Amino acid sequence: MKARKATRKTPKVTGGRLRPVGVIRSTLKSRSQAPRQGPEGAPDAWLQVHPWAADALFRLALGDEIIVVTWLHRARRDVMQVHPRSDPRNPLTGVFATRSPDRPNPLGLHPVVVRAIDGTRLRVGPIEAIDGTPVIDIKPVLK
Amino acid sequence: MKARKATRKTPKVTGGRLRPVGVIRSTLKSRSQAPRQGPEGAPDAWLQVHPWAADALFRLALGDEIIVVTWLHRARRDVMQVHPRSDPRNPLTGVFATRSPDRPNPLGLHPVVVRAIDGTRLRVGPIEAIDGTPVIDIKPVLK
Repeated sequence: MKARKATRKTPKVTGGRLRPVGVIRSTLKSRSQAPRQGPEGAPDAWLQVHPWAADALFRLALGDEIIVVTWLHRARRDVMQVHPRSDPRNPLTGVFATRSPDRPNPLGLHPVVVRAIDGTRLRVGPIEAIDGTPVIDIKPVLK
Repeated sequence: MKARKATRKTPKVTGGRLRPVGVIRSTLKSRSQAPRQGPEGAPDAWLQVHPWAADALFRLALGDEIIVVTWLHRARRDVMQVHPRSDPRNPLTGVFATRSPDRPNPLGLHPVVVRAIDGTRLRVGPIEAIDGTPVIDIKPVLK
């Protein structure tokens, strides 16, 4: 996590393949165990950043509010409409008007607090992502 | 954008390839023109949703606060640390502690308001994404 200068200066247009930068290690093992949103009783979890991306953590600090972006690998990508919160009393709604994990590109946005830092592992929470969920980005919350 | 029931009931584990659900049509044509964040003077823009994803817009409404998730296709993916806001007086910082577009998976998160709806086009803003930026998800802001 030390300072390291970027070496190449010319912009490069790049493709759309995701490369996980880390993984969630949680006591939540299945979607059925997970609350729908972090503040609804989710636990804290470890975010293990892969070694190749560790330099990108430099200056991230204890207590920071961050948005963890995940790839919800257990989600369905062919669902365009859902009953919100899986409650049939809620009218069928387009997934872009809901936070359903099932959607064409199943990205999860998780606003969390950095509770601890242990090398390239961050303790973050509360977070409803299940164990093994790939992390694809980390961003600070804008104030 | 009419109601349509999902037909398959079994969960499916799926891969990590992004599929754009739409595209930004903006008067901003280059990164150098774009403000760093939407509230810093960015214009409104059109978000054109591709026909295959149009059903996912059902019940999205005028005035809704949404997060548009983009793929910042002009960004560099090999940059791990930057001087925030490209100001050399700011100390070198890991990209996970910044909102730099240059990062391993160059996702943009744009909180915007839905200003108008014209079929499968949404007028949204303010948004600093440049013309041609692929949109990969749309989510409501949680209250």
